[in-house]
Amino acid sequence: MFEQIFENVRQKSPLIHNITNYVTVNDCANILLACGGSPIMADEPEDAVEITALCGGLNINIGTLNQRTIPAMFVAGKRANELGHPVVLDPVGAGASTLRTVTAIRLLKEVTFTVIRSNISEFKALALGSGATKGVDADAADKVTEENLDGTVTLAKDFARRTGTVIAITGAIDIVADGKQAFCIRNGRPEMSAITGTGCQLSALTTAFVTANPDRPLEAAAAAVCAMGLCGELAYNRMTALDGNSSYRNYIIDAMYRLTPAALERGASYEVR
Amino acid sequence: MFEQIFENVRQKSPLIHNITNYVTVNDCANILLACGGSPIMADEPEDAVEITALCGGLNINIGTLNQRTIPAMFVAGKRANELGHPVVLDPVGAGASTLRTVTAIRLLKEVTFTVIRSNISEFKALALGSGATKGVDADAADKVTEENLDGTVTLAKDFARRTGTVIAITGAIDIVADGKQAFCIRNGRPEMSAITGTGCQLSALTTAFVTANPDRPLEAAAAAVCAMGLCGELAYNRMTALDGNSSYRNYIIDAMYRLTPAALERGASYEVR
Amino acid sequence: MFEQIFENVRQKSPLIHNITNYVTVNDCANILLACGGSPIMADEPEDAVEITALCGGLNINIGTLNQRTIPAMFVAGKRANELGHPVVLDPVGAGASTLRTVTAIRLLKEVTFTVIRSNISEFKALALGSGATKGVDADAADKVTEENLDGTVTLAKDFARRTGTVIAITGAIDIVADGKQAFCIRNGRPEMSAITGTGCQLSALTTAFVTANPDRPLEAAAAAVCAMGLCGELAYNRMTALDGNSSYRNYIIDAMYRLTPAALERGASYEVR
Repeated sequence: MFEQIFENVRQKSPLIHNITNYVTVNDCANILLACGGSPIMADEPEDAVEITALCGGLNINIGTLNQRTIPAMFVAGKRANELGHPVVLDPVGAGASTLRTVTAIRLLKEVTFTVIRSNISEFKALALGSGATKGVDADAADKVTEENLDGTVTLAKDFARRTGTVIAITGAIDIVADGKQAFCIRNGRPEMSAITGTGCQLSALTTAFVTANPDRPLEAAAAAVCAMGLCGELAYNRMTALDGNSSYRNYIIDAMYRLTPAALERGASYEVR
Repeated sequence: MFEQIFENVRQKSPLIHNITNYVTVNDCANILLACGGSPIMADEPEDAVEITALCGGLNINIGTLNQRTIPAMFVAGKRANELGHPVVLDPVGAGASTLRTVTAIRLLKEVTFTVIRSNISEFKALALGSGATKGVDADAADKVTEENLDGTVTLAKDFARRTGTVIAITGAIDIVADGKQAFCIRNGRPEMSAITGTGCQLSALTTAFVTANPDRPLEAAAAAVCAMGLCGELAYNRMTALDGNSSYRNYIIDAMYRLTPAALERGASYEVR
Repeated sequence: MFEQIFENVRQKSPLIHNITNYVTVNDCANILLACGGSPIMADEPEDAVEITALCGGLNINIGTLNQRTIPAMFVAGKRANELGHPVVLDPVGAGASTLRTVTAIRLLKEVTFTVIRSNISEFKALALGSGATKGVDADAADKVTEENLDGTVTLAKDFARRTGTVIAITGAIDIVADGKQAFCIRNGRPEMSAITGTGCQLSALTTAFVTANPDRPLEAAAAAVCAMGLCGELAYNRMTALDGNSSYRNYIIDAMYRLTPAALERGASYEVR
């Protein structure tokens, strides 16, 4: 199944509009190109609303939100909704500051999202109004483990049902859930958290995957999460004793560029709960 | 000829002011350093007008234009004109949105540009008021081929004559033209389009080349286009079976750092029409 | 001593708030992760003041300052002061434009800085109201040499005493001084200046080091400067005949990721004057 989903990304080359933070934007653009998509960035409201109409999907990332880009997120999100384009939210730092939490919650009210891709603390901030976000990383206390996995899956399914959105929570174990089913994914490497923006990249990638597979958002999001994790594994295998997080970043994007749909099918590691 | 032009860049180390998008800005800075130039970025109008006076040349890229940076482009462009500094325009996404098209056309009216560096769709949007820009990439229908090359050269020369600007259109075949002559350049690799910002980098590079060679803007722009394409070839030769677009990006900048003026002379592949 | 200081960074994993330019922000984030810290960026004033409270230290870099980010620097700086968090200033381009010089001087008046990390021309612009800043690089005429080292050390100590701030001036010879003592550091490679943002990265790194070692700002800043230079040496040793400034950038961050506290202790090259 993931083979066909990824094949669709490579074939359709979806054009993705990103309103995203300036920290990791270059990596987001390159991972989109690596997977076969095409990126464009526009965050002035007047420009964003028109650019989003040109694209197939929209990726909203609140990482370095400001008073100019916040309105752009709303107008572009609503326009994408009108046009039936998939929209993905990456609520970077929700729970860490009032502006981020409030903006993410307002976005959820006024824009229909296809997927929310976040870490567990950001998810809890949105779903429960709690969660101790340590900056832009999940708090250790929130960590998804084998012990609390079933509980977290239930939480994700409930929030997915309530919002009509696919929930993708990534960490040591990733959960991708709609109201009925959850993919529990075990691809990836812990060293990926030592690179800035692997989460942001995954949100951009997820947008390309759901845009190229509009009828299967759950499976498309799960495929994107597996692909990112698998590339993290492949890139790790390539590292030498001198390589660190900067080369690792390059190798992950390289791995996505080289990844074949068949290799994704073979390498994806998940169970459905 | 290109040997001397590149030698001038290395010798004079031109300081280049860039008002550019935040997606590829880091790569623009590093390619400028790689070629022997020196980058500075400033996009608050008050700061931009003063910084540009300090520099030798100005590179205006409208990739993520906004209501703050647009005025900066105009005041810096006019100041650079007053001082006789070369100014290069990269009209990213002209034709893709009203704000981008209108801004590019207004810039052409109010600022004198030494070079416009764009893809074929952006060029057509400015020269003909048409061209189907697919986001920030050229549309397949606009593609320059051996069949339509002569027609495109004529179009480029006409627009160059009309505007007094060197026109650099890059793609599978690159055209660099003033009103009389056109360099048709066949350096480069198709894989370069899988890296975000090779066009942006080339615009920054072109600014350094024309700044260090103020009396020969046509030849300097052609040399920059050849240099970028040649580095794309040299970097491609270095790629392993595991390398993808991220390592390729690094290798291209590395190749520019190592490129000698003599190697540029030898490797440049062009004809004059 | 540096071993323990670096060990504290690795152990405490300080969360660092960066209000920094968009040119080198990704590298700043990755060097912070490489040293064991954790980065967050927020530059909308409302967000910045709250995010800084969550963090352990604040890094203010005026590289692409604008009318939105300047107020953020002031409110975040003052909030960090109230909370007793270390604050580092990187006055990028002070002396090169009025807005940059005036902003840096106003910041020095209204915010208490733990460390100012700059090149020699930026330092002179702040300390003497002179210094010929060549864009964002130091002017050759200002260069610290063996001949003028004692004079520059005196200047640094005087300014440190007057402001109560540790002064870190980096270049061929680095000086890190408080009012009494100065570390003269000879780590590093001249090729580091061919990479954009090694200074910005060092400022971010310094913030992590002083945050994890609040009682020893002088030694912590000196350790950060030695660490960055040492990584420049280690990364240089790794370069092949095809590598240039882009791979060198990656290798430096990689070297920081791999650097052990014991290796820093061994490799640090300094004398105290």
